[in-house]
Amino acid sequence: MSRILDEVLAANRAYRERFGAKGQLAMPPARRFAILTCMDARLDPAKFAGLAEGDAHVIRNAGGRASDDAIRSLVISYKLLGTREWFVIHHTDCGMETFTDEIIRDLLSKSFEQVEIDSQGWHDRGVGPGSDAGEFIDWLTIREVHASVVTDVRAFARIPSCRPPSRSTAIFTI
Amino acid sequence: MSRILDEVLAANRAYRERFGAKGQLAMPPARRFAILTCMDARLDPAKFAGLAEGDAHVIRNAGGRASDDAIRSLVISYKLLGTREWFVIHHTDCGMETFTDEIIRDLLSKSFEQVEIDSQGWHDRGVGPGSDAGEFIDWLTIREVHASVVTDVRAFARIPSCRPPSRSTAIFTI
Repeated sequence: MSRILDEVLAANRAYRERFGAKGQLAMPPARRFAILTCMDARLDPAKFAGLAEGDAHVIRNAGGRASDDAIRSLVISYKLLGTREWFVIHHTDCGMETFTDEIIRDLLSKSFEQVEIDSQGWHDRGVGPGSDAGEFIDWLTIREVHASVVTDVRAFARIPSCRPPSRSTAIFTI
Repeated sequence: MSRILDEVLAANRAYRERFGAKGQLAMPPARRFAILTCMDARLDPAKFAGLAEGDAHVIRNAGGRASDDAIRSLVISYKLLGTREWFVIHHTDCGMETFTDEIIRDLLSKSFEQVEIDSQGWHDRGVGPGSDAGEFIDWLTIREVHASVVTDVRAFARIPSCRPPSRSTAIFTI
């Protein structure tokens, strides 16, 4: 086992021991809302939005984008589990602002190894060949975070399969 | 503004006041791993896995499934931001076990309103018509959670655009 896995399992055991009555929480979010936000390691949605276990759905991906998968999740959240409000929360210093589709496709084409960044941008110094599979992925990068959060809220208006609940936007700043 | 928005903004202000040196955290996850888990309101990944701000990427969707969007996020996590391990964490009593593609498509076709569940299953008592757009969405439901977590880890082996880091699985029980 990896050291990280050991650490995660130990943390989980400690949490389980103090979980107590939370094991009886109902499946539908008690406060009837959902948050769509970025996977960024510096973001803790429970802390930045004041959530206790059972309060709200939290959907996270690279950028906190209104991808098809986020919309799948939000439709389930609304239609089956009763959320009435959705928040899209992007943040400053987001990694998704640091590259474009062209850049990541180029990096992936060069090698399978991890890249480095400096003031000149990303550099792939790995041993190739890489893969051109990145050409077929829309990476949903962000050019400007104030615009992206608005774009993503607007995306909900195109959901034909449910009437989206009232919508709110916010930008959380690191 | 909604009451929920007021509450979220107040919680965010309080968090910001004690954020302090966390504003200097680096973008790459310090502990170099990522977690893919469910949006379920009862799950708090930072608590159940022992994460501090800056430690790990957290990707969440309905079911914690290895969707195309989760894979997009994980490739970025690995290739650009240096994660070396990925965890897929599903959980018991998951909402994704309570319906099938056929059921949610039928419910969405009936109305845009929220549904009810009882011992007989889901019921749509809303005023129609609904939408047949749900036919074109793969809802990624879960038949059995021990199998789904394995399926999702195996999905990583099909990623052509990066060499996935070492993989671990876990099931978190509510």
